[in-house]
Amino acid sequence: MLLRGGRLGAIDREVLEFISSREADSWIFEADLLVDRAHLVMLKDRGLIKAEEFATIVGALDQLFAEGEEALGEGEDVHEAIEACVIARAGQVGGRMHTGRSRNDEVATCIRLALREQLLGLMEELNMLAATLVDRAGKNTDTLIPGFTHLQHAQPTTLAHHLLAHADALLRDQSRLEDAYRRVNLSPLGAAAFASTGFEIDRDQTCRLLGFDGLLENSMDAVSSRDFVLEVLAHLSILMVNLSRMAEEIILWSTSEFAYLEIDDLFASTSSIMPQKKNPDTAELVRGKTGSVLGGLISALTICKALPLSYNRDLQEVTPHLWRSVSLVRGAVRIMDGCVSSLRFNTSRLEESAGAGFSTATELADSLVRKTGIPFRTAHQIVGRIAATNTSPTLEELDAAGEDVARIRPSAMGYSRDDLARALNPRSNVALRSRPGGPAPAETGRMVAQRLEMLAQRRAGVRERREKASRALQALREIR
Amino acid sequence: MLLRGGRLGAIDREVLEFISSREADSWIFEADLLVDRAHLVMLKDRGLIKAEEFATIVGALDQLFAEGEEALGEGEDVHEAIEACVIARAGQVGGRMHTGRSRNDEVATCIRLALREQLLGLMEELNMLAATLVDRAGKNTDTLIPGFTHLQHAQPTTLAHHLLAHADALLRDQSRLEDAYRRVNLSPLGAAAFASTGFEIDRDQTCRLLGFDGLLENSMDAVSSRDFVLEVLAHLSILMVNLSRMAEEIILWSTSEFAYLEIDDLFASTSSIMPQKKNPDTAELVRGKTGSVLGGLISALTICKALPLSYNRDLQEVTPHLWRSVSLVRGAVRIMDGCVSSLRFNTSRLEESAGAGFSTATELADSLVRKTGIPFRTAHQIVGRIAATNTSPTLEELDAAGEDVARIRPSAMGYSRDDLARALNPRSNVALRSRPGGPAPAETGRMVAQRLEMLAQRRAGVRERREKASRALQALREIR
Amino acid sequence: MLLRGGRLGAIDREVLEFISSREADSWIFEADLLVDRAHLVMLKDRGLIKAEEFATIVGALDQLFAEGEEALGEGEDVHEAIEACVIARAGQVGGRMHTGRSRNDEVATCIRLALREQLLGLMEELNMLAATLVDRAGKNTDTLIPGFTHLQHAQPTTLAHHLLAHADALLRDQSRLEDAYRRVNLSPLGAAAFASTGFEIDRDQTCRLLGFDGLLENSMDAVSSRDFVLEVLAHLSILMVNLSRMAEEIILWSTSEFAYLEIDDLFASTSSIMPQKKNPDTAELVRGKTGSVLGGLISALTICKALPLSYNRDLQEVTPHLWRSVSLVRGAVRIMDGCVSSLRFNTSRLEESAGAGFSTATELADSLVRKTGIPFRTAHQIVGRIAATNTSPTLEELDAAGEDVARIRPSAMGYSRDDLARALNPRSNVALRSRPGGPAPAETGRMVAQRLEMLAQRRAGVRERREKASRALQALREIR
Amino acid sequence: MLLRGGRLGAIDREVLEFISSREADSWIFEADLLVDRAHLVMLKDRGLIKAEEFATIVGALDQLFAEGEEALGEGEDVHEAIEACVIARAGQVGGRMHTGRSRNDEVATCIRLALREQLLGLMEELNMLAATLVDRAGKNTDTLIPGFTHLQHAQPTTLAHHLLAHADALLRDQSRLEDAYRRVNLSPLGAAAFASTGFEIDRDQTCRLLGFDGLLENSMDAVSSRDFVLEVLAHLSILMVNLSRMAEEIILWSTSEFAYLEIDDLFASTSSIMPQKKNPDTAELVRGKTGSVLGGLISALTICKALPLSYNRDLQEVTPHLWRSVSLVRGAVRIMDGCVSSLRFNTSRLEESAGAGFSTATELADSLVRKTGIPFRTAHQIVGRIAATNTSPTLEELDAAGEDVARIRPSAMGYSRDDLARALNPRSNVALRSRPGGPAPAETGRMVAQRLEMLAQRRAGVRERREKASRALQALREIR
Repeated sequence: MLLRGGRLGAIDREVLEFISSREADSWIFEADLLVDRAHLVMLKDRGLIKAEEFATIVGALDQLFAEGEEALGEGEDVHEAIEACVIARAGQVGGRMHTGRSRNDEVATCIRLALREQLLGLMEELNMLAATLVDRAGKNTDTLIPGFTHLQHAQPTTLAHHLLAHADALLRDQSRLEDAYRRVNLSPLGAAAFASTGFEIDRDQTCRLLGFDGLLENSMDAVSSRDFVLEVLAHLSILMVNLSRMAEEIILWSTSEFAYLEIDDLFASTSSIMPQKKNPDTAELVRGKTGSVLGGLISALTICKALPLSYNRDLQEVTPHLWRSVSLVRGAVRIMDGCVSSLRFNTSRLEESAGAGFSTATELADSLVRKTGIPFRTAHQIVGRIAATNTSPTLEELDAAGEDVARIRPSAMGYSRDDLARALNPRSNVALRSRPGGPAPAETGRMVAQRLEMLAQRRAGVRERREKASRALQALREIR
Repeated sequence: MLLRGGRLGAIDREVLEFISSREADSWIFEADLLVDRAHLVMLKDRGLIKAEEFATIVGALDQLFAEGEEALGEGEDVHEAIEACVIARAGQVGGRMHTGRSRNDEVATCIRLALREQLLGLMEELNMLAATLVDRAGKNTDTLIPGFTHLQHAQPTTLAHHLLAHADALLRDQSRLEDAYRRVNLSPLGAAAFASTGFEIDRDQTCRLLGFDGLLENSMDAVSSRDFVLEVLAHLSILMVNLSRMAEEIILWSTSEFAYLEIDDLFASTSSIMPQKKNPDTAELVRGKTGSVLGGLISALTICKALPLSYNRDLQEVTPHLWRSVSLVRGAVRIMDGCVSSLRFNTSRLEESAGAGFSTATELADSLVRKTGIPFRTAHQIVGRIAATNTSPTLEELDAAGEDVARIRPSAMGYSRDDLARALNPRSNVALRSRPGGPAPAETGRMVAQRLEMLAQRRAGVRERREKASRALQALREIR
Repeated sequence: MLLRGGRLGAIDREVLEFISSREADSWIFEADLLVDRAHLVMLKDRGLIKAEEFATIVGALDQLFAEGEEALGEGEDVHEAIEACVIARAGQVGGRMHTGRSRNDEVATCIRLALREQLLGLMEELNMLAATLVDRAGKNTDTLIPGFTHLQHAQPTTLAHHLLAHADALLRDQSRLEDAYRRVNLSPLGAAAFASTGFEIDRDQTCRLLGFDGLLENSMDAVSSRDFVLEVLAHLSILMVNLSRMAEEIILWSTSEFAYLEIDDLFASTSSIMPQKKNPDTAELVRGKTGSVLGGLISALTICKALPLSYNRDLQEVTPHLWRSVSLVRGAVRIMDGCVSSLRFNTSRLEESAGAGFSTATELADSLVRKTGIPFRTAHQIVGRIAATNTSPTLEELDAAGEDVARIRPSAMGYSRDDLARALNPRSNVALRSRPGGPAPAETGRMVAQRLEMLAQRRAGVRERREKASRALQALREIR
Repeated sequence: MLLRGGRLGAIDREVLEFISSREADSWIFEADLLVDRAHLVMLKDRGLIKAEEFATIVGALDQLFAEGEEALGEGEDVHEAIEACVIARAGQVGGRMHTGRSRNDEVATCIRLALREQLLGLMEELNMLAATLVDRAGKNTDTLIPGFTHLQHAQPTTLAHHLLAHADALLRDQSRLEDAYRRVNLSPLGAAAFASTGFEIDRDQTCRLLGFDGLLENSMDAVSSRDFVLEVLAHLSILMVNLSRMAEEIILWSTSEFAYLEIDDLFASTSSIMPQKKNPDTAELVRGKTGSVLGGLISALTICKALPLSYNRDLQEVTPHLWRSVSLVRGAVRIMDGCVSSLRFNTSRLEESAGAGFSTATELADSLVRKTGIPFRTAHQIVGRIAATNTSPTLEELDAAGEDVARIRPSAMGYSRDDLARALNPRSNVALRSRPGGPAPAETGRMVAQRLEMLAQRRAGVRERREKASRALQALREIR
């Protein structure tokens, strides 16, 4: 007994550490003070606490805000620690703060409030990175580069076309975050433990005071659901996958074999042993951190799986993954913005490589179809015959291959030496590809202009959301 | 060398199997025929093929459609197999079908077309399951049940409140699918291999013919991106997590210990050795299959991570996860609909349990606050003192606890025997909780009505989308 | 330019934070000092540095060890910071420490050294938890409980049988960790950047000095591989899945519906609003943290996927998942040990439930087969007929069912009233199941004894490993 | 009601499909027949069935084996279908086959039996791939290549060194599979539903008959545990990560930028539109399928998480992930063996690149340390100064840098023109690195010989296991 008693005593502090959420709670310390304040304003307006009581408690909260999180004492979570601190400063009356609510609705509200702020920041940064890509695209509509499939040279394209492809993927990431924002910015406050409360609280008022767009209505759903966290983690994962593809290309293109670009020193590092090295560490870490974000998503999904309603303590383990991932993703987006904006492209090597490896073969086949009217599959076979041995055929060689494969002579069917030269020239090749979304300079120029406009709208949208939220919180802070 | 040659020869068929996508391609066989047709109509209208050529090729496609997928020969993918089949039937001219396109844009278009159909079906089924939950809620606004936190009795609530919480989660799943639909129903056709084409194709026309809502514009992005697949898989995962929570409760509530409900025989099974058993197999499998869907998501994310642009063969490995998950999720939604609609709740046991375990303690504390004006935290301590030994206190015992904890006597501060009786009665307890989202019968009744209306709108929205798509495809099939 | 310069300047600190590994490096600070020391001893013995140089540098390391990690300055990783610190204290000569090695082999060695320590600790704790289970099993070989399949009562069994099932799973976890230990406790030191070195270093000596069991030989493999981390993370995940199953049962069995056990107060918590609550928070968190460990595994696997040889910076992102998981798992094992050892089983309710729900039906069928010789499937059908309406049949009712199903009367075939009573009695039921691994008290008693012996061997094995490692490090610390 | 009835009727077939395991059961059809037979032999030997009964039932099983799986009728799983088939052919007596067992122990036994076979096959194939790598290494101990860190040229090494690094990783994969095999090849048979049985069965006999190495003793553990599946899936995932790293290098090295190797046509494919393309499709698919295997692992872990004992239907959902992954991994190993053995390395380009980019800088610094006695960090700085502008310094330039950085002239401290030439020569560079595990030809030659020996032992070990298992099953098949 004594032994067991001794052991359990020793475990005591360990149990507290095991169940504590204090480390992750730093993310919601300020949010919690705001939620407390909104709840108190409502209690006062509904006559559930008196004006003097309100003033006393709010005073204690203001003092705590000024002193910062370090002023808190122990406690298994930030909510308990704040309430204890308020009672210590304001006296018994501090105990009225928890009227008509529970930690269950409180924590759900705090997470949403803090996450809203993070999403707005991320959306701004993502817009900035997309703008950087579009901006560099705008300056490179005429820069030829090899286009790849299977990492093999396929057809020539332009740097603008390539950078815009990345920008469009990020714009979809941004759309997904906007969609998620609508489901995040809702108020669970007033759900109490899960069954709402018999006090005559006003959920709509606290919703407005905190700048939420509406209620998360059903009180059981309000405290049990973390699908908004899962959704954000999913969108963050997809965004990181998109970033990792850019990172991979930066790594590849800066090898001495590719030598298509050089990373700015600020985003590279050297070796402790090999003095000549310049390593693309930031891009490698963006690629690596993608795995960390994916793991955070799967953690959260697995934790939530098969939990009965309503609140279960497992949910506490979900949130740290959210904060860790959101912070990591924002860092990665900002780093990529700096890295991409300072890349030095080796345009002469890119242009020279654009036509290498018979990457104009497709256009050669296409031009045969257009000029001679033979089916595409036949043209493909004629060019395939040439490709085996020759990457720069003469008209005579083309005729010979035509004879060989299909008993035709292109030159006799209207295919001229000029047609051939044009087909084999990467620049005229690209110029021809002017259909919507294609790499022709005029078309990528049009896309650049259109994306810049779209980005201006996106920025305005984020700004509007941010202002709505800030105005509400500013007004809330001023209520005394 | 001879040996090696022999070995490699033997591997041959194995290589084909390893790289083949034919098994998963069943999902896009019909979509591919439609994409071929739309492309051909456009080629004809743009003068890129002749009317007779069009007629011949479309005839071959129609014949193939009539005969079905079995009519196809070998080939590493369905696109190649169809083209080969068309050339075999229509002759050389069949080779014109591939003018101005590539398998890269073709497969991306087919996946989106087939996925659109699946999403519409899933949204319909999800609406049906949500309707079943709301419907059963509507009939149980007065059915008391114990409400749980940490799987411990917490406060009384109603079956309606509980079922509506599940319904609201599913309605958010539905919203997410609607958001994803906007990014799925876009046309990559005309992107060709990734660099668009020099042929004067009309991307807008094929977009319209196939019932898409717009272009996936940048041609490099169009063939490289699978974020629409990742997004759908993420939403499916979250949806399954929500279903798994319902499944878990069905399993728990049908144990002999809970005995809160009975599953219909159709959704249960028995044992090969224990003749008395009735097992909730369908619910267990919904719970289990949640893991399978989560794994599909993580597979797809991991496959796409760090792939350079544009198309890489890895992408072929993404799609089977999509089809497997979408099919599994639709099955789970339908099974849950059948299972939930046929559950027999043991309402007498539920009601009896609703008040057990002093689950009215919170209301007792709240009523003390309301009637006597003491702070909530003080009331909580008084009731906590009682809870240790007694779950049904008299007014005298309440006074004694008040004296003990805070030197007050509630009965002297206006707290009556009637107040006490009301606080301890689960039914009046629930009736009091009439704030928005609360379990009071009037409030859940309001929510039921509002959700039914919302469901009618959702159904109309899905129907509209389906009709737009069907009309386009119907018109396309009739073009000759 | 100015603007850009300004922006990049501002990013500077951010870049450092983004690429820094300092937070996770706390886990290897002491290991690094030991690795430095072993390397220096070897350099001295091989004549690559002089005895005085050795003394000076080792003096600086000892001082740093005494002062602790806080004494380090900035630096993107702990290796760089320690070297800088040594040079600052020992002067230029400190620059000799990095002779014939690189951060690449250094970090790999540090991780293995620190992980070895963690594995030994975890194995000890796991043995302790298994011993707790076996110990409680030993005291409950006669405690009847209901045995479950599909969470439905299936057949009676004993608490010992049930607890031993959990213990055996943990013993396999322990075996897996032992297997992994053999692949962890190997020395990569001397691999340098990946190509080994031209200095005449002695890899075997540093291996021995650090208490490793052998070399991780190929120098490119030595710095590129993290499969030992993946393997440990996989075993930790499986272990957590096993713990989560115990946690789930603790949660279920402590509901008021099951009421099969009570958690000690130390491992439970109460509610901020519901004073009567006693929640199984520690068990819920063990269950929840399982998801976190699974996510750590998937992160690490995804990060390592498709990395070309040799070292890539992505690998830095792997290690934090290892430390986070190992720390979390050790905490969970210790918490479960405390929680399980202090559980109070409600044995009277367990015994009473053991026979409820006709859980003896299988034995009734089996006894019919044994006594009358009818096929099992026939007996199963006769008992199934009874089960529909009756859970405690008389011999007459059994005969009636026999007639009905198969035109036989068991009583006429030697089946007596005593046979029936024995079959329906859960205790004699269990006593009969004495085959190896079965629940009969004698058999579980035998298993308890055997597992205790096995545990003693396991403990001895861990102790031996720990002593070998400690002796080596102790000796190393004393070399001057 | 009528509507509901109609709907449920319609769902009927769907329920059966939803709960059926028949698709995955193909993997255990033959195993099940063997398990049935072993159980029957034991029942006969223990006098639990008569010799004639045994003969009749075994006859039916033999007939079924001859006809194959197609001969089975409907049934939610293969066990039920086989029993039904046996009763249909052998009559009532067939019902005796299920005496003293349950589907729960039966399926666990079948999975282990079938998995054992798969593991043996995989281990053989993995040994073959490792042998191919070692074999090619043996022929390339003198082939210089650039060694990479961060995908940047770091130091010269040899192709042998690089290939052996991959081989060693695979040898660890093989070790892990061997460890897992010990936990897989155990017999759960006789555990029955989970509580063992009252029949006097002989678990040791069925264990021996089926060639298992021992019992999975505790009968509750025996039917509840799937950690052996999780472990195998984890090892398969790690193995695929290792393969994906080889695949990534094959893809990179076959780009036109690297041009270090060419894939054999058999393992490449071309484009539907770009006739010049040769794409490394098999390597891309190995890389992609890695994601699928990772997802299978996470699925299985998530499914098993938090399942209470003993059997739950969720477990049925685990097995398909096992079969899918094991089959996919075996395919990938075989494909990689063919692909690697037929790679054509461009050794002249590799050798030429080996010294490019000042990759000898480390050796230059090291040689300065060895010849002049200056600290490594100083030498590193001198060489770093040169590296900024010059990748092939003269002795005069080296002196100038020495003066500049540390006021020393290496030529005055014994550093000769010959020393410099040797340091800058990649071949002598590599020759110097002869420490254990280094790239020097003698050392890689030693490693090749040692690995070949190790592989011979591994092959013998697998062969022995296979023979033990085969002998047992052969003997079992012959018992009549």
